Amino acid sequence: MSRLIRDLAGGSAEMLEIFGDAAIVKHALAFEAALAEAQAAEGLLSRDEASRIAIACAQLPLDTEVLAIEAAHAGTLAIPLVAHLRRTMGDESLRRKIHLGATSQDVADTALMLQAKGGAALITREVERLQTALALLAERMAATPALGRTLMQSALPITFGLKAANWLAGIDDASARFRRECENALVLQLGGAAGTRAGLGGKGAVIAAHMARLLGISNSPLPWQARRGNIAGLAASLAILVGAAAKIARDISLLAQNEIAEVFEPRAVGRGGSSIMAHKRNPIGCQIVLSAATRVPGLAAAMLSALPQEQERGLGGWQAEAPVLADLFILCHGALKTLAVVIEGLEVDAARMAHNLAAANVGLDVGESEALVKRLLAARKGQA
Amino acid sequence: MSRLIRDLAGGSAEMLEIFGDAAIVKHALAFEAALAEAQAAEGLLSRDEASRIAIACAQLPLDTEVLAIEAAHAGTLAIPLVAHLRRTMGDESLRRKIHLGATSQDVADTALMLQAKGGAALITREVERLQTALALLAERMAATPALGRTLMQSALPITFGLKAANWLAGIDDASARFRRECENALVLQLGGAAGTRAGLGGKGAVIAAHMARLLGISNSPLPWQARRGNIAGLAASLAILVGAAAKIARDISLLAQNEIAEVFEPRAVGRGGSSIMAHKRNPIGCQIVLSAATRVPGLAAAMLSALPQEQERGLGGWQAEAPVLADLFILCHGALKTLAVVIEGLEVDAARMAHNLAAANVGLDVGESEALVKRLLAARKGQA
Amino acid sequence: MSRLIRDLAGGSAEMLEIFGDAAIVKHALAFEAALAEAQAAEGLLSRDEASRIAIACAQLPLDTEVLAIEAAHAGTLAIPLVAHLRRTMGDESLRRKIHLGATSQDVADTALMLQAKGGAALITREVERLQTALALLAERMAATPALGRTLMQSALPITFGLKAANWLAGIDDASARFRRECENALVLQLGGAAGTRAGLGGKGAVIAAHMARLLGISNSPLPWQARRGNIAGLAASLAILVGAAAKIARDISLLAQNEIAEVFEPRAVGRGGSSIMAHKRNPIGCQIVLSAATRVPGLAAAMLSALPQEQERGLGGWQAEAPVLADLFILCHGALKTLAVVIEGLEVDAARMAHNLAAANVGLDVGESEALVKRLLAARKGQA
Amino acid sequence: MSRLIRDLAGGSAEMLEIFGDAAIVKHALAFEAALAEAQAAEGLLSRDEASRIAIACAQLPLDTEVLAIEAAHAGTLAIPLVAHLRRTMGDESLRRKIHLGATSQDVADTALMLQAKGGAALITREVERLQTALALLAERMAATPALGRTLMQSALPITFGLKAANWLAGIDDASARFRRECENALVLQLGGAAGTRAGLGGKGAVIAAHMARLLGISNSPLPWQARRGNIAGLAASLAILVGAAAKIARDISLLAQNEIAEVFEPRAVGRGGSSIMAHKRNPIGCQIVLSAATRVPGLAAAMLSALPQEQERGLGGWQAEAPVLADLFILCHGALKTLAVVIEGLEVDAARMAHNLAAANVGLDVGESEALVKRLLAARKGQA
Repeated sequence: MSRLIRDLAGGSAEMLEIFGDAAIVKHALAFEAALAEAQAAEGLLSRDEASRIAIACAQLPLDTEVLAIEAAHAGTLAIPLVAHLRRTMGDESLRRKIHLGATSQDVADTALMLQAKGGAALITREVERLQTALALLAERMAATPALGRTLMQSALPITFGLKAANWLAGIDDASARFRRECENALVLQLGGAAGTRAGLGGKGAVIAAHMARLLGISNSPLPWQARRGNIAGLAASLAILVGAAAKIARDISLLAQNEIAEVFEPRAVGRGGSSIMAHKRNPIGCQIVLSAATRVPGLAAAMLSALPQEQERGLGGWQAEAPVLADLFILCHGALKTLAVVIEGLEVDAARMAHNLAAANVGLDVGESEALVKRLLAARKGQA
Repeated sequence: MSRLIRDLAGGSAEMLEIFGDAAIVKHALAFEAALAEAQAAEGLLSRDEASRIAIACAQLPLDTEVLAIEAAHAGTLAIPLVAHLRRTMGDESLRRKIHLGATSQDVADTALMLQAKGGAALITREVERLQTALALLAERMAATPALGRTLMQSALPITFGLKAANWLAGIDDASARFRRECENALVLQLGGAAGTRAGLGGKGAVIAAHMARLLGISNSPLPWQARRGNIAGLAASLAILVGAAAKIARDISLLAQNEIAEVFEPRAVGRGGSSIMAHKRNPIGCQIVLSAATRVPGLAAAMLSALPQEQERGLGGWQAEAPVLADLFILCHGALKTLAVVIEGLEVDAARMAHNLAAANVGLDVGESEALVKRLLAARKGQA
Repeated sequence: MSRLIRDLAGGSAEMLEIFGDAAIVKHALAFEAALAEAQAAEGLLSRDEASRIAIACAQLPLDTEVLAIEAAHAGTLAIPLVAHLRRTMGDESLRRKIHLGATSQDVADTALMLQAKGGAALITREVERLQTALALLAERMAATPALGRTLMQSALPITFGLKAANWLAGIDDASARFRRECENALVLQLGGAAGTRAGLGGKGAVIAAHMARLLGISNSPLPWQARRGNIAGLAASLAILVGAAAKIARDISLLAQNEIAEVFEPRAVGRGGSSIMAHKRNPIGCQIVLSAATRVPGLAAAMLSALPQEQERGLGGWQAEAPVLADLFILCHGALKTLAVVIEGLEVDAARMAHNLAAANVGLDVGESEALVKRLLAARKGQA
Repeated sequence: MSRLIRDLAGGSAEMLEIFGDAAIVKHALAFEAALAEAQAAEGLLSRDEASRIAIACAQLPLDTEVLAIEAAHAGTLAIPLVAHLRRTMGDESLRRKIHLGATSQDVADTALMLQAKGGAALITREVERLQTALALLAERMAATPALGRTLMQSALPITFGLKAANWLAGIDDASARFRRECENALVLQLGGAAGTRAGLGGKGAVIAAHMARLLGISNSPLPWQARRGNIAGLAASLAILVGAAAKIARDISLLAQNEIAEVFEPRAVGRGGSSIMAHKRNPIGCQIVLSAATRVPGLAAAMLSALPQEQERGLGGWQAEAPVLADLFILCHGALKTLAVVIEGLEVDAARMAHNLAAANVGLDVGESEALVKRLLAARKGQA
């Protein structure tokens, strides 16, 4: 994808690296090395053989351009990758011990989950930054009166801190779901050709557990090559996290309208200008978040559509998942990172809030706004 | 919706009743009665007033046809419903004590969650029935050899029990997610006009907790009128549950092809015939499940699209959720109920499996199939 | 579906009737009668037999409740319907001449297209009403200055008529697409059991053409039982029509915000009120349209997902289409009808527009706004 | 996006170039040069100024990496691009004449439509190749008997040519829709800051018409910056085209099952193998097409969701469209190109078809199969 388009959509270099070619290949080779080591521990191959495979994995010279063409032709990455690996081995008998008992999808799925693990760490970092900024905002503004608005009309008084608390609670809920779905989905895949773990000398469970430890990923009783619900759950949780961010962006873009003018994105030289109107201050951060929110529901729907996969390993379903999951991670990270900056530097005009509230002529009773904020913040501290 | 269309899609009368007019009105009136009782406990109104409101709620004569027209005109159900309630009260001061501190969306959201609670019970019943049938199938067929198929081609041997175990694990995962999302989402909504709980005499938290107990639903620190991630999560979990069922239906429909003929839906007089071909035995159960799976991703996407709702209460977003969530419950229940019957009566032709396996000429090594089945069944017993 | 939910979503009684049970049965029986008549014209059965079948179709006493249960059991409507028809015939040989050469999906698809034809007429009526109201508004306000807003910020002057002209052009484009897609999709289906028109004595083409004339629907060279792109195109065109309406609703809801207050939905007693805030005037019309726009993309996506249907007649794909298409027609009609009322009675406060424009301090140059309006209106007259 | 993922999904280098950075910048600069030339023709600037702007556009040295960062910061490409252009001009007065009367979205939308035009040419080329191959197949196999299959069960005889004719008709319909939607959507965008064409000296219509001729794109009476239905229609047409291709891929994957074995993808060394099973011949072409079909409905839904854009220019909606439309073009092209190769080299085993048909014991009456094929082919010749 074009860098211009990607960067405008909030794509960060670090997340793109996580879902980049070098990372896939690195994870795929780590899979092969871990497989050999775990098999050596169970006596399927010798320690020396495992070491030589690990060294070959570490040293394999690869041209990803060439590999991409070969993979596209073969229909899967593992075939040419394993062929390259084998070619570096002088020893015919050792060649046969690479990728022993594994199949292409084992490599592809495990590599994808290792990418997702890296992506989850980046997202968690931005979530935490955003949560900190929102909690501060909620606390600081807990008692600041503002006009509540419902169905796009002036309603009754609130405090701005209550609004921020609701934003925070939305991120809290969505990030808790994301964590749970990561726990469910970030699991080693090792099934072999038909998902039976044939060719592992009856030691499949032990080998899988060992590999999972080596790769720093979870294990499960059954391989999951045709059971994709957990990946779909992860995808949905990313879409909901983007939605929780976009709810905040929607509100800020409404409150920043010139006739309302209660909050503003932080000023940054050269950001939010117009190519033609010098006076403008466009909410570009909100734009990126709302744009991501326009795209993610369809991406999540694609993952849900892929679920009824055929037999022991489907055709076309799981192959559609990797690029879609990558897009979800990229968009979610871009949205959260952008929004964290917006919230950290959010300009709040409490005087204007008071003015708009007075103009609405709906009194000053903010109900239990402040208590609600405090209860949420206390509940969060209790959990932390 | 037409009964013909609805029933063909697997809609059950009991789920339709749960999401029917009478149920909404019943839950809405239960909300008003619980509100009055909880407020009486805190001294906002007298015990006698609360009783008279409860009686009025219980006895309100309602024509849902008329109410539907009035609600459509008003834009919300609560306005005409509360007006009808008030009209039954002779006492002007009592009239003002109905719906005190609540707003339309409080009623609508809480009623929807009470409907969802009823729907969840029906779904859980079918999930359990399906799990039982699948566990029996997996156990019974744990060692029955069959041909594994990958990318729509013959691969290597499996046991049919391993396939059933994978089906079961998919339903297990999806139903665990559904339970979690129910716990998160099935929460009382009580925020008042702008979500501040103004007008509850500072007793909002206690009143909400009391109402939640009375209504048999959870409570949360903050009202959630503009924070819809948990409803979206519930929607996604329903779609994933349907997807897990459809994976099974996809496999059965493939295995039931005449040239493969390894499994068949149970025979039922008048089911699966053709209007023109007497010899046909169409997998109608699979059809219903696969048809549901075609529809649910878009429904879940609609819920995700609705997330960036405006300010304290949005316009058009949450109003789209009730019919979509109802469709998801109806389709999910229909799919599970249909599939449970299919699995309970599934005809398995082990001889044909052996024949097809032999014809594929891929040996008889089923790897660790049986052990994988046993490990899953043991892990499930450990959890139960 | 519950009436309360349906009516709140803008469902009209007339569109619901078009997609109701009685209509399906009526169209299905019309199909059988037309088939008999067209076959009689080609000598496949006698005039007398065709007449007796037509009379049986006209007089068939049916309990749709019972029929729905039977159809759900059989997996298709035509099987029990044809069985009921046959039972009314004393004559065994005549019984066999009903439904001759046709199959269930022929009946189901043709009936759905006849429903769609009825639905299209209702939608066209509302489109024309909306176009008339928008053209008047554009013409009347062609020179009325207002503040243009971009990226949710004040931009430069426009005229309100230019905004209305853009709204109108959006509806024009979308309704032209809808008309084209109706022309493509509203086509008789007659393929027989495997889509070969076997059993029609080699007269399939003539019989199909005759039936299409009798039923008032188009014909095509090939039956289309597994070629569903035109139905998907129709679905997408309905979603785009809703989107064009929702663009208008979005703008009105933004302009009606209290701090902007430039346009308002027409006043109607009891509409747009709050159950708790007497001062509110909620844009309920916009709510209905925006709510529909939240739902239709997922419905259209379901139709797109259904396209890769299996072989001569798929399993689960086309069976998902009828309820989804019905929802699209119902939501589109409700949105257009609601919006037409809003535009016909739209209150425009030109003085407030002038005030907001002056406050924005961006001058008064409305560029070619008026000329653009005139050019659009002239181009429309040229086409009419 | 990673090359490995992209190439596995069928992404072609030529389509990726069309939607690449260099192409966007080229089109954006072509926009600025055409604007200057058209304005010079109307006397808004001198011939000499227009020439100097054109030369500057042609010679601008650009680092797309830097530009991407700047554009992401500014929120739009045109701001840094125009700034770079201006910096190359010594003359202050000339600087101000660049981008005169235009705005960022004018550049972005027109560049996107020029990309789409390039993409449409590539797609049309593959469509035609596919149509030719399908027409040949239909003609050649018009009378070849095969077993028809409905609801995943053996039905009645067809000819294989009739199946191919249905495939062809699906591609015909979908490509006709795609052409129409291209005609509607591939339109110059020139509205200026608020869509009024202010700053063009009242010559907006003439300038737009002139620019459209220069850029080789259509023109329309009104600019369309907030009227996105035609782009959504284009997106839907791409999704339907993929769906028509995927219907073919679904059928081939079903017919290539080992137990059926009637058709096969063409053999290619190293394609369709397994990393572990030497005997396999996976239908990789079908995999790519079916994988694309899993992804495109959600992409089309995102475009539909973006329709209700705010006011004169929205926030987040249109900014989401470019990457989604690019993905649709890339996936559609990859699917068609892959399928064309499959159909051109499709191995058809007519003897096996006869064998399977005989085994089904459903007679040999293929009805009007051959006549239907001929009628379609004749109708196509009539139109060509």
